[in-house]
This record gives sequence, structure tokens and C-alpha cells, in this order.
Amino acid sequence: MSARPLRVVGHPVPRVDAIEKVTGRARYVTDLTLPGMAHAKVLRSPYAHARVRRVDVTRARARPGVFAALAGADLTWCDPYYGPAYRDRPVLAIGVARYEGEPVAAVAAVDEATAEEALELIDVDYEPLAPVMTLEEALAEDAPLVHAGQPPAGHFADLSTLRPRPGTNICHQFQFARGDAAAALGGADVVVEDAYRFPPVQHVALEPHAAVAAWDETGALTLWASTQNPYSVRVELAKMFDVPLARIRVVVPHLGGGFGSKTYAKLEPLAATLARAAARPVRLAASVPEAFQTVRRCASRVAVRAGFRRDGTLVAVACDADYDVGAYADIGPRVVQKGTYTATGPYRVPHVRLEARAVYTNTTPGGAFRGFGVPQLAWALESLFDVAADRLDRDPVDLRRQNFLAHGEEFAPGDTPIDGKLEESLSRAAEAIGWTRAPAADRGRGVAAMLKASVAPSVSEAIVRLHADGSVTVLASAVEMGQGTRTVLTQIAAEVLSVPLARVTVVQPDTAVTPYDQTTSSSRSTAMTGRAVQVAAEDVRDQLLAIAAQNLGVAARELALADGAVVAPARRLTYPEALALKFGMSGGELIGRGVIAPGRTAAPLGGSTPFWEMAVGAAEVSVDEETGAVRVERYVSVADVGRAINPLLLEGQDEGGVVQGLGHTLLEEMLYADGHLLNGTLLVYRVPRADDTPSELECHFVENADGSGPFGAKGAGEGSLIPVSPAVANALARLTGVRLRDLPLTPERVWRALRARSPRA
Amino acid sequence: MSARPLRVVGHPVPRVDAIEKVTGRARYVTDLTLPGMAHAKVLRSPYAHARVRRVDVTRARARPGVFAALAGADLTWCDPYYGPAYRDRPVLAIGVARYEGEPVAAVAAVDEATAEEALELIDVDYEPLAPVMTLEEALAEDAPLVHAGQPPAGHFADLSTLRPRPGTNICHQFQFARGDAAAALGGADVVVEDAYRFPPVQHVALEPHAAVAAWDETGALTLWASTQNPYSVRVELAKMFDVPLARIRVVVPHLGGGFGSKTYAKLEPLAATLARAAARPVRLAASVPEAFQTVRRCASRVAVRAGFRRDGTLVAVACDADYDVGAYADIGPRVVQKGTYTATGPYRVPHVRLEARAVYTNTTPGGAFRGFGVPQLAWALESLFDVAADRLDRDPVDLRRQNFLAHGEEFAPGDTPIDGKLEESLSRAAEAIGWTRAPAADRGRGVAAMLKASVAPSVSEAIVRLHADGSVTVLASAVEMGQGTRTVLTQIAAEVLSVPLARVTVVQPDTAVTPYDQTTSSSRSTAMTGRAVQVAAEDVRDQLLAIAAQNLGVAARELALADGAVVAPARRLTYPEALALKFGMSGGELIGRGVIAPGRTAAPLGGSTPFWEMAVGAAEVSVDEETGAVRVERYVSVADVGRAINPLLLEGQDEGGVVQGLGHTLLEEMLYADGHLLNGTLLVYRVPRADDTPSELECHFVENADGSGPFGAKGAGEGSLIPVSPAVANALARLTGVRLRDLPLTPERVWRALRARSPRA
Repeated sequence: MSARPLRVVGHPVPRVDAIEKVTGRARYVTDLTLPGMAHAKVLRSPYAHARVRRVDVTRARARPGVFAALAGADLTWCDPYYGPAYRDRPVLAIGVARYEGEPVAAVAAVDEATAEEALELIDVDYEPLAPVMTLEEALAEDAPLVHAGQPPAGHFADLSTLRPRPGTNICHQFQFARGDAAAALGGADVVVEDAYRFPPVQHVALEPHAAVAAWDETGALTLWASTQNPYSVRVELAKMFDVPLARIRVVVPHLGGGFGSKTYAKLEPLAATLARAAARPVRLAASVPEAFQTVRRCASRVAVRAGFRRDGTLVAVACDADYDVGAYADIGPRVVQKGTYTATGPYRVPHVRLEARAVYTNTTPGGAFRGFGVPQLAWALESLFDVAADRLDRDPVDLRRQNFLAHGEEFAPGDTPIDGKLEESLSRAAEAIGWTRAPAADRGRGVAAMLKASVAPSVSEAIVRLHADGSVTVLASAVEMGQGTRTVLTQIAAEVLSVPLARVTVVQPDTAVTPYDQTTSSSRSTAMTGRAVQVAAEDVRDQLLAIAAQNLGVAARELALADGAVVAPARRLTYPEALALKFGMSGGELIGRGVIAPGRTAAPLGGSTPFWEMAVGAAEVSVDEETGAVRVERYVSVADVGRAINPLLLEGQDEGGVVQGLGHTLLEEMLYADGHLLNGTLLVYRVPRADDTPSELECHFVENADGSGPFGAKGAGEGSLIPVSPAVANALARLTGVRLRDLPLTPERVWRALRARSPRA
Repeated sequence: MSARPLRVVGHPVPRVDAIEKVTGRARYVTDLTLPGMAHAKVLRSPYAHARVRRVDVTRARARPGVFAALAGADLTWCDPYYGPAYRDRPVLAIGVARYEGEPVAAVAAVDEATAEEALELIDVDYEPLAPVMTLEEALAEDAPLVHAGQPPAGHFADLSTLRPRPGTNICHQFQFARGDAAAALGGADVVVEDAYRFPPVQHVALEPHAAVAAWDETGALTLWASTQNPYSVRVELAKMFDVPLARIRVVVPHLGGGFGSKTYAKLEPLAATLARAAARPVRLAASVPEAFQTVRRCASRVAVRAGFRRDGTLVAVACDADYDVGAYADIGPRVVQKGTYTATGPYRVPHVRLEARAVYTNTTPGGAFRGFGVPQLAWALESLFDVAADRLDRDPVDLRRQNFLAHGEEFAPGDTPIDGKLEESLSRAAEAIGWTRAPAADRGRGVAAMLKASVAPSVSEAIVRLHADGSVTVLASAVEMGQGTRTVLTQIAAEVLSVPLARVTVVQPDTAVTPYDQTTSSSRSTAMTGRAVQVAAEDVRDQLLAIAAQNLGVAARELALADGAVVAPARRLTYPEALALKFGMSGGELIGRGVIAPGRTAAPLGGSTPFWEMAVGAAEVSVDEETGAVRVERYVSVADVGRAINPLLLEGQDEGGVVQGLGHTLLEEMLYADGHLLNGTLLVYRVPRADDTPSELECHFVENADGSGPFGAKGAGEGSLIPVSPAVANALARLTGVRLRDLPLTPERVWRALRARSPRA
């Protein structure tokens, strides 16, 4: 059957939710209304760091229309702390507020206006404390501590290796070594070294965080939430409220973009707490400024030394990375650990020393963001690679190609072998950008590559149901957040079972009924959830073949599925007919099960990934030497995806990734001064607009069907973002001779650098 | 493992939904409110039979607040006919109204008052036609025809043998013969013969029918409905609106009693039609009088001849049964076919001739009602058995015992063997009522027995999910309608997986996510759905054992589950530990699958049942000779259930069955005059009150674990109702010498019979 040409997989079919989305009828969490539902508002700390001496909610509580008003001290009836790495984050500040915008009190009332007014009746007695706002301040001797004590561990066993360093602001420290990097660097012919900074940036999902929580008459909790991983949220809520997992239902309607900002619990604990206190459903929806106060990308300072032999062979990399994880750990320590482990990128490096620190500061907590720590490192390594090429007098493309890990080569001894062809991606990118042809005089070109691990261990499960009329229901918990996973899962089930797309329905994630899926992030849904759906559909297929084999008296191997029927050389049994034979009546369904759980390996971190994400970017830029404004004129992204289940959606993913990458490359940075975030609104925080996108933007895919996902697919979606900054900076450097180390490449920074440059060689 | 003493199964644990129900917090369909939801009202025919010449909804449609006003002629955009046996029932009357109360037009409006007012703006031009109100009228030569043409077949293949007789009011005719009944009756030593009437009665579920329908933005339909079989409703709606099964979601919250009235589509087609027309969610809730206009029990006239040898051996039964199925077939033809096939009751009868007719009349459609046609037949046969005992000068208990089918004996050649011990039930009943001791002078005692088939073929499926914390979710589609199925399924999963009841959650039926279950009726949920849950839980158990065997290095046969852990002789692995080993992380779930599908057999009707329901009743009655009022002083019900999964719930079921049986025995009858139902409200229609129940009412269970259901259980819930009428009438006959043949045994009927009786022998 595998030799059969693919019917819907691999084709650019329109997304199954297209019409509901373009008509505005698709429903998101905030579209939900429940009878008696209250609306919540949050009072937030005006200080980056303050002792909270007293919170008086008496007057707020007494206001007509208010159902609940809570401060941290009220939360004696649940565990008020949560967080995936450590439970260091209180639902509402308890004793101390650790960043500007931290929730200090909250109100649930009959409507939003009443809740807002009630907030003004809450008296908070703050004692301002000295904040630490930067990595340097936080790591200084005698720095004020963001957290005084040792936070309890989180509830996720696979994060239990994370450890804060007591008495410091170090939230986690990661170290990894292979070979002898110091000696190898000492013996290298050419050593390049520099430090690169990556700014704190916001995800700016079109839909800010939202949750509607309702406790039912049996004491069970249902939560409609804008979350990328309902199952992780379920764990945290179960522990907070001491309720079995089976009695917490997290439902995820359409999601208006995640990019990592909606992984792990965010607003959900507060919504659930308020709903319990108010004894009614509660809706809590963040504004855009509140999203800036909820989570961001971890800023970083990454120092890399790389040693080469004269012939260009990379022999050693030493990397010291500090990441600013803000006031609460969130998943920051894991971002740091996971990202840094692959700091050597897609290259073969015999001698490695990697050290990284996750550092608390009094700023918005840093968490997961598309790329999960890798963009910060690739910005450093890929910039430095071009510096090395200069020093070695080598073409940057050739130097990379020389050092790429080969297809099938283990990333590290015992770890997942490389499942793609990096050289093919790079060649495609180089060819598309016209690397070997000289650019126009006012243009410069640069390339960058990246390799990224997905989450590991990684578990996805799915159930596929074939109904009596041959239509199909897929139960899986991958979140549709705009990336098109619902369409992709529909295609996979339709392909395996040979039915039209319109006869497949994918149920929205709902932990009460759709089976476990670890997370919709880490570029994993197609590869992992998609594979689970494929296996579940194949389970149904095998049941169909067995029914037909028995009833037609034909060996199962001589049967195939086609157009909603089991086809034998001379006969045909439609699915309704097959089911009627199986059940002896016009009812009954076939249930298929797919469980994908590669498990842990002996490799570092228990094995780094079930598949590798690989991408190359090539940029052609111009610069206005008068203003320093950099413009990306052309951009080519090439991702090795194994198989494009839906090329249209994949192109959308990768175009979006490139443009989002242009944000932190050219425009975006959360700016703090005097403990205050200066630009936490979309009026002043500049994300790319349509006219910031390259006039020529191409996304290509390498498809060798060499992935472990469905039909040879691998993950995609994060890869295209990561090479953008170094590719653009490398292009700028090749055009102007100016090497910038701090993102974003704002006109002012570029202008200053151009002014300061030594005459070009 | 099976030898282990049962921990929760077999114990009278309180129902899992007790608190939500006694506090009034349990939610039913009518508790649901959706944003923008419209309320529907129905205009009904005032005539039993009329041509509907014109329905003008123009003024209703124009009324402010009205979203839709529909008549039958408007339904050109869907198939407006539905019905399980035949699609003979229009959503709204088309051309003809066939019974008083038939929906003719309907309105969806902003609230109920507006909808009600809009009904008054609808003009209907009726031309009254001659109705047929009784079996006699309907079967008379040249009777007016309720249906002129041949209705299209229903959508259920297993009902495709049903056939109306064109040009008559005969909706279906069933015939069955074995041996030569005419010859055997001719040669019998004693032949008894009589005809017995059973009245049309109403189910009087505390919750009348209700449905909320909502079409979503993708053109899929969600329906919250008070239905006993969401999957059958799904089929009918899918066909009506030409939508794949996978895109119709039928959700069933708590149900306030069904008793068969909520099998197959009732209000759901109209609710869905109005929702589509109104382009918004629509709520349609029947009043109690409207329930009287929706469905009822089929009235009957059953003539039986039974031939015995002098020694008491029953040699032949001939039965001619006519059932009044009202204006639309509903499932009436199947009631007649199915019931009549077992008209010989629990007895060995070599020569059988059974004929039955389902007959259309211009009355409320007759459908399923607890007992599914058997109470009507048992009323006749079991009364006649006592007549025969009199004639043979035999004790009625002994005569029955002599003729009972034996354990393991096939009901009919090739059909399901008897899976219980009838003699044990009868002996227990006789002993409990003190049969061998003389009653007080003013008391009489009677017994009756019954055997009933469940639906066949019969399919139930279940999914059981074991979560990372060892809590359990059960996905199954048996409807909780007061009988306690949610508790029973919880017990079964908790027993197999050895976890506390509080850690098991049973999800409410929802065709989008809970797997196929044929119907919650026919006393099948414990035996069939329960067995599916058991198998699914055992599937999870086997996965747990395999994980533990592999990780502990112990053979799976040496392992057992206990207290949420896999227990080896010297070690213990909790479920969370086992899952962490399997998945290499703190996530992932085990998915178990249970599919129960006994299939068809070569026996008549494809095999009559997956299990037999068997019960015996014994009544002790008194009569007020002045008024004719019969009082049941004591009643003993004995049911052979194989295993009482929950004795407390089972007792509740059987007590309820006895009391409901007392309704049609003593009190209930839908009375018609001049084409009008006279007593279609609870003010005048008398159901048993607390003071009508016997002061001593005992329910006993025979438990030999000989059923094919979980832990040896069989079905229960209908059996106790069926012997009530003949046991009471037999007691009355033994007390007074008066044999009544028409139910209910009203004081007037009894008084007249007492006055007319010949002096007692």
C-alpha cells in the first residue's frame, strides 16, 4: 500500500477551517459565554520589585455586582503556586511582587466595567525594593535576590533535573562537555570569539491569553483555555486543587496564535481560582499590554569561541550563554538547557564545552518562544561562522558545507542521528539566492543554517473512529493555533483511510475525551500527533482488511483501501458494508488507536529529540547609509521537512517564521528604564508590517521522506525563523564590513556602526 | 485474578451522581442556555384526522422577535420524514394530520412567550376526515386509511424486514410457527383460551422530551437531547440533512427518565430543522401534555390458546395479537415482532403459532415502553396459565415450574440458550410471599413469570483511559437516565483497575467522542455497555501488566492489580510509576478499547437476544367489595440478574418497575372519545402515588453469575414490571373467583365483575 501515489497528503489542499476563519465565525475562548458567567480583572504591581505588606479587598468585595475579590493571602484553600520548572509563581503575589505587572489582586464581577471599577477599591500597601533589571545587575555580587528561598520543584518529572542555585539569582545552570574544548581551542589554527546579545521580545499573538473556568456540580473543573498544551495545564490545576486528572477538563477552541506564549499554565490558575471563589464560571481575558506582562522571549548574552583547523575543519566550540528568564522560571530553565545542548548547531564538533545560566531578573517572566532558546545561540554561532570564514578566507557557504553533520550521523554519541541532508538545504538556498553570482553593488548576501531539537521524551496519542457511513472522527489533542494542524491531521486520516477530506472531522482538544498529547509546540504536531493519527488510522485500516479478508475469502495482503471501500482484485466492499458485516447491523464503529512514545535514551538529557528540525536562510539586504535602515530585499528559506503534508500550510508557516524573525532582527525589543517597561503596547512596540517583508520571499522544502513522522515527515514551523538574524547580519557585514553583535539591527545601531567602521579592506 | 473477591462490584455503593441530583444541581437539557438561543413552540392539530389544506405562517414570521416560523410545506431543503421502522412521520404535518396533537407548524422566537403568541398568528385550513380510533375501527372493512401510500423504509438495516400491508391500516404483520400448533391443540387434553386487552398508557417520565439544536460555523450539527439512543438519533438527522455521521454531535446530559419514550428521534428533527431555519441555536422543550402527544405504549388485544396434557405438560400455544401503534409506526412494528416472538414466555412449548399485527390508528404514535411488547403478552399468557391450573386442578406455581425452560436449554432451536434458573426465581418468590401458607381470609395471592429478550444484534463499545496520576476516564455512550448506569460503569472500571470510585469519571454520551452504543434500553446497559467497559479496562490492565512484567522482570501471570498498583510477589509499581516507565516522562495515558458485538445468528430474527431477562412476581391483594378497589398489600419481585453489580440501584430499578406496573394494572389508561384524548394531563391521568404502593414490597435477586455480561451479570430493569398485572389479576381471581381480562383493574370494572360473578365454587 505504501507504494500507492498519495491522494491528499502532499497536496496543497485548502485548510479545513478556512471558511469559518475568513467569515469571522470561528470561535475562540473569548467568544464563549456561559450562563451566570462572571468577568475578571486583575490588579497588577506598579513596581518591578516590592514588598506587598497588605492587600485590602474589603471594599471591592462589598461593591454590588462583585462575586469575588481575592489577594494572594486569601488562597489558603489551594496550592497557590505553579510553574512547570519550579512552582515559584503565585497565582497572586504573596508577600512580594517581583515584576511590574505581576498580578496582586483580582476581581470577578457581573461585567468587565464593574470588575474594573472594583479594582480601584482595592488598597495595596507596597514597600518598593531594589530591582535587578538586567543580566549584569542580577549576576552582580550582592545583587538583590529576586527569589529568597528555594522554590519547590514542578510537577513534571522530566523537568526534575532543573535546579536553582540558592543565594543567587541563578535559576538554573546547564553544563555539557565532550572531548577537551580548552585543549582543542588552544591547539586550533584559527580561533574566533565574540559575544552576542539577543533582546527580550514579545510573541504578539493576535489573541492574547484567555480562559473561562467553570467548576461543575460534582466538583470537577472545566476550563476553556487558549493554551498550546492542555495536558500540562491539566497537571498543574490538578495539583493546585487536589483533583484527579480525570476530573479536570481543559478544552481548547481555536487559538489565535501561540508561538510558545501559551505553553504551560498562564491565566488558567487564576481563572480557576476566581471561579471557585465566585462559585460561578469566570472569564479572564488578557489585553495586549497584559500579554506583555505575562511572558516573553528570554533575552540572552552568548559568548562563543570556535576553533578551526587551517583547512576549515571546526574542531572545538566553547559557549557561555546567559539567559534572562525574568521574575519567574516558567519553562525558562528548560529553554536554556535544551537550547544550549545544541549550541553547536548543525556542525560536527569533536570538542565541546557548553555552559549556560538561566538568570532571574525583575522583569516579565521569560518562557518558550518559537525556537526555544536556539535563535539566541544561532545568532551567535552563525554570525561567528562568517567571521571565521573571513579569517580563513573561505566562502561562508563552503565552510558550512564542509562542517555539516552528515545524514545518519549521530548528533552526539548515542543521540538521535541526523535525519536530513543539510548540504541539500544549503545548496538549494544558495542557488535560489544566486550565491555564486555577484549581487548588485548596493546589495549584500548572507546565509545561516540551524539545527534544532524537538522536545524529548515526546508522547502523542490519537484515536480514529470509522462510523457506519464511512465517515471518520479523529480524536487528538494537537491545538489548532493557525498553523493548520487540524487540516494536516484530516489529510493524514483521509489518506490512510481513502476517504474525502470532507468526511473526516477532527475534534477540538478536550482532555476529557481527546487522548494525551504532550504539547503543541516544538514543531512536533505533524511529526508526532500526525504519526499517532496515522497509526490509529492504520489500526482501523487493518480491521477493515481483516473483515474484508474474512468475508471475501481473500488474503488481507491482496486487499487495499480505495474510495471508501476495501478493494479486492475482483470485488469491492464499501466501509458501510464492511461494518454491517462486522456488527451484523447498521451501527457500530471501528476504533483505532495510535500511541507514539519513543521514550528516553541513554543520550544526554535522555535523548534530545525524536527528529531534527533543519533549515537554512539566505538573505539579500540593502542599507540606507544615511539613516542606517536595513532592508531585507530578498529572502530564501529552505527547510528539510522530509515530506510536506500540506505545502500550502507549510509555506504559510515558514513565511510567518521569516517575518517573525525579521521582527527581532530589525525592529523588536522590550525596553526597560527605571524598572518600567517603556513599550508594552502595540502603539510603541513595532512588529513587522506588510511593508517590512522582503519583496521577494521564497520558502523551499527538501523532501526526502526521511523523517520518522507520517509519510516521512519531520517537524517544521520554527526552523525558518532561526537563521534570519545571522543571515541578515552576515549579509550586512558582507555589504558594509560592519559586524553587529546586538539585536535588533535598528537604524541607530547600524548608523553608529557604519560611522565607526574602519575603511573597508 | 478472577478469583479475587470483588471490591466494589456487587456492593451497594451510593450512586456517583447522588449529590448533584439531591441538591438539584444536576443539569438536564432544559438547563442549557446557549448565546443567541431561540425558544420554540409547536402548533398542533386539533383533529385526530384532517386534511391540512393550507398553513399560513406569514403573520407569525413577521412578528418581531420571531426568527423562524415553519410549516410542513416549507421543508423542501431537507428530507422532512423520519422514523426508525418507516420514514412515515413528517417533522411537521404535510398534507394530512393523522392524530390530535400532531405538529403542524412551529415557531422559534426570542423567548417562549413570543413563540407562543406567534403560534396564534398562524392560520391553518383543516378539512376534518373520519378517524380510526381503535383496533376494531382500523381493521374494519373499508376503514379510512391512516396512511394512503407506502412509506419509505427507515435507515436501520436491521429493521428492514418490516413491511406495511398496502391498502390497509396494517403497519406490520409478524408470523412465526414451530411444530404444528393446530394439530397439537386439537389433540391436547385441556385447552384454555381467552382474549386480553392492554390499555394505551403514557411513560410519564418526570422530564418531558427536550432538545437544543445548534448548527455550527462549519455546517455541523450539535444537538443536546433527552434521548436514550443518541446514535440512532444521529443516523436519522444525518440522513435528513445529508450530513456525514462524523459531523453530527448528539450530546446527552442527565435524563429525567426514559422508559422507552426517548428511544429514536422524537423532538430532535424539529429542533434541528428550526435551528437551521432560524440560523441560531433553538431550544424545544415539550410540556407534559405534549409528551402525551409524542409517544405512548402500544395498546393491544391478545388472544391466546394453550393446550396442555393431563399431566400438566404444555404442548401448544397459539397467539393472535393486535397492537395499536397509533398514527406513525415509530418502533411499533418491531415492538410487535420482537414481543410476539417470545409470546410463549419462559415455557417449553413444542408447537407454536404466533401471529401479530401492528395497526395504525389516528392516535398518538405508540412506541417502545419498558417491556417492549411483552407486558401485553404476559398479561394474556400468565392470566391464562392460572386458568389452566384451575382447569387442571394444579397449583399455579407447580404448573409453571413443570413447564419452565431449563438452564442451558435453547429458547428455540438455534436461538440463545436460557441463561438463568427460572425455578429458583419462582421458588424464591413463592417462599417470600408464603405461598404454601394460607393467606388471611380477605387476601388472595397470585404469581406470574416472564422471559424477555433484549435487542439483537446488540453492539456496545467503550474506551477506558488511564491517566498519569492513575485516575481513569470512561468513554461510553450509555445514557444516565436515573437507572444508575454511570455508577455501574464507574464500579466496573474501578473494580477491574483497582482504583477508588472517586478516581473514575464517566463522560456523558456525546457521539463526537464517546464510542458507539446502540441504545440505552432493552435492559442492556449493564450487560452490554458494562461488558464493553470491562473489556476496555481489562485492555488497560493487560497493558499495565506488560509494562510491569518487562520492568520488574516478572511474568505477567504472577502480577495482579491492587490499590492503584501492579503488585508482584515482592514488589509494587504504582500506576504513575508504570506510566512513567512506559512513556519515559510524566505524561501519556493508556488507552483501552472494548467492542462487544455478538452479531447475528441463524435463529429467527437473526437471533433474538444476547441474554435473557427473567423475573417472577408474587402479589397478595385485598379488594373492597363495596367499591371494587383492589389494593396490592404485598408484592415480591424476583429477578434473575446473574450478578447484581449494584444491589442498591437494582432494587431501585425493580421497585420502580413494580410500581410502574401497578400503574397500568390498577390506574392508567389514555382515554379517547370523539377523536379526542380526554386525560392527557397529570391532573387527570393517574399514575401511582406513594400510597398506592404495597406496604410490603420486596425485590430479590438470583445471582448465579451465569450471565454473559460483566462479572456474570445479565440485564435487569424491565423484568419486574411485566409480571405485575397477571400476578395481581391472578391473586384477585384466587381471592374472588373473578377473572378480569381488561386492564386497568379499575374499581368500576372490578365492582361490575364482582356483581356479575356466579357464586364461587
